[in-house]
Amino acid sequence: RTLRIGLIPGDGIGKEVIPAGRRLLEALPASLGLKFEFIDLKAGWETFEQQGVALPEETVSILKSDCDGALFGAVSSPTTAVKGYSSPIVALRKKLDLYANVRPVKTVVSAPKPIDMVIVRENTEDLYVKEEKTYDTPDGKVAEAIKRISQRASSRIATIAGEIALRRQKIRAAGAPSIHQGPLVTITHKSNVLSQTDGLFRVTAREALAAPQFKDAVAVEEQIVDSMVYKLFRQPEAYDVIVAPNLYGDILSDGAAALVGSLGLVPSANVGEGFAIGEPCHGSAPDIQGQGIANPIATLRSAALMLEFLNEEAAAAKIYAAVDANLEEGRLLSPDLGGTAKTEEVVQDILRRL
Amino acid sequence: RTLRIGLIPGDGIGKEVIPAGRRLLEALPASLGLKFEFIDLKAGWETFEQQGVALPEETVSILKSDCDGALFGAVSSPTTAVKGYSSPIVALRKKLDLYANVRPVKTVVSAPKPIDMVIVRENTEDLYVKEEKTYDTPDGKVAEAIKRISQRASSRIATIAGEIALRRQKIRAAGAPSIHQGPLVTITHKSNVLSQTDGLFRVTAREALAAPQFKDAVAVEEQIVDSMVYKLFRQPEAYDVIVAPNLYGDILSDGAAALVGSLGLVPSANVGEGFAIGEPCHGSAPDIQGQGIANPIATLRSAALMLEFLNEEAAAAKIYAAVDANLEEGRLLSPDLGGTAKTEEVVQDILRRL
Ligand SMILES: CC(C)[C@H](C(=O)O)[C@@H](O)C(=O)O
Ligand SMILES: CC(C)[C@H](C(=O)O)[C@@H](O)C(=O)O
Repeated sequence: RTLRIGLIPGDGIGKEVIPAGRRLLEALPASLGLKFEFIDLKAGWETFEQQGVALPEETVSILKSDCDGALFGAVSSPTTAVKGYSSPIVALRKKLDLYANVRPVKTVVSAPKPIDMVIVRENTEDLYVKEEKTYDTPDGKVAEAIKRISQRASSRIATIAGEIALRRQKIRAAGAPSIHQGPLVTITHKSNVLSQTDGLFRVTAREALAAPQFKDAVAVEEQIVDSMVYKLFRQPEAYDVIVAPNLYGDILSDGAAALVGSLGLVPSANVGEGFAIGEPCHGSAPDIQGQGIANPIATLRSAALMLEFLNEEAAAAKIYAAVDANLEEGRLLSPDLGGTAKTEEVVQDILRRL
Repeated sequence: RTLRIGLIPGDGIGKEVIPAGRRLLEALPASLGLKFEFIDLKAGWETFEQQGVALPEETVSILKSDCDGALFGAVSSPTTAVKGYSSPIVALRKKLDLYANVRPVKTVVSAPKPIDMVIVRENTEDLYVKEEKTYDTPDGKVAEAIKRISQRASSRIATIAGEIALRRQKIRAAGAPSIHQGPLVTITHKSNVLSQTDGLFRVTAREALAAPQFKDAVAVEEQIVDSMVYKLFRQPEAYDVIVAPNLYGDILSDGAAALVGSLGLVPSANVGEGFAIGEPCHGSAPDIQGQGIANPIATLRSAALMLEFLNEEAAAAKIYAAVDANLEEGRLLSPDLGGTAKTEEVVQDILRRL
């Protein structure tokens, strides 16, 4: 099978980690029967400065018609609002209907306090619809934004969360080391304040997870978002799959990343029907850009995650194992993990373990 | 001076900790020249079951006309939406225009990783305006909520954050042990996505903190909310005063509470012009209710915080010192802190240290 992969490095260290992702895919053992073709695509702040748009139409149309998946690096945002600029990744998620943002957060098994969870974030609505307006009042300006929650989006995100919980259980049953007994989905919301919007998310997710394929197989519980953040830090080992509306998912996944020591370790995939974009959770990190010290692991794991959602689970498993072996050994670590290795050294170490 | 204090125990352990708050105030040394009168008031789930309203008009009107301040315990929320029920504390904050929710989070100075921050949460708007609607579409139900941010509310919350930063610095300068060099206010927002609403919060807070009284005295920086949660866990010692819109403040303060080991330690005050309601950050904890083991410290510190905002700083300082002494000694701790002491024993230990 030949997979056509769009490469969107974006800005800053995005340009250092996406090439690493490409090399990783090229280095996968031939026995997997996978070939790759790569298409370089543009998006981000530099693109905006050159072309006046952060996400060129061409990037979207090539992804739609020519690609099976993509890797997205990171983009820099201007610090003050700039007319015409808006986040290309947020736009891509909507334009390609990549309705799930999947963010696994785990330590190596030998960690003193092992955790192994995945945050499944709704990726198309909530406050991210970006419908805002500003008006004047006698007391000054007032701005409003719409938070939109639909039954349809809530149902499909809960369904994929349930599927992910079952798949994780299957991998465990096949002998992978794990800290969890059985599959658990935790629904996060704030329905004690937002009874209609978050209430709809809550009830719909409950219904979706009561479907026959999950009914007796997946345990379901709930956490109010503030309490979820508290629990995330007090007993992270308790969580398996956390499903949340867009904004809470954004916040929770950064919180979870803090638990494993560095954003540089945390991958994500933006997943739609038959399409996935791997995207490291970190930003463009202008402070370390150009020094060759960015941690490539979030991107390498994102490439694996993309492959998983393109049904190439064997290839994904190879990558995860190689990354885990690098981390378990702990000899070649990038500076965010307290090491001194360069991006290049980490990449080479992981490639040789494939 | 005689202070008239409304007491609203609410539900669950609220009924166990608010009496402790009352005894604390009564036990303050006579040398402070403070007298207290207490007025018992109703609100909460039990009140809703008895009277059909969670926040009786009488409670609001007595607080408005007869009280200088109040202590609020905790209320239980129904797990599914119940017609006519809505959170009495959210309503009180709006009805009394208690525009700031102030949540100090600190460890004892001798902690291995000392932290000392205060979260100043806007308390009247954002998604807490609770303007929601639901409609049907061919694809199912859709619900929308309004997130409202005003220049007026953003400006006054940033101003009080700046004032709190200056006051903390004054207390430090007077010799209190501290981990901070100088006052710092961190503005939290998500203006990279919500350019109008959170953008207005950001710009207005910046302006308010550029006023002459703060200009050269208070350092100001910003964090995007997801990154703020990450930093909160990676380097909590760096933060002094964090100012945030309502919902982010809600989430951040639970996150910060996790850092100090228990929600049972974290106080808050809902502050308006010349009025303050002290409120422990924990909930009604039905799981431990009636066992006499609730940690009273969040309430005792909330009483002190209320006094601070009623300009009784000397009395507040006495309470903080007594609580810190109990914690430093570490002999009489409630179960949430790993101890075995009953609420009553902790209260007695703290009262004798006043
Ligand atoms: C950059 C920003 C728009 C984005 C988001 O909020 O989704 C980022 O925080 C993320 O989590 O991918
Ligand atoms: C109970 C709930 C409505 C409340 C809030 O969200 O403000 C609580 O979480 C708090 O922080 O005081």
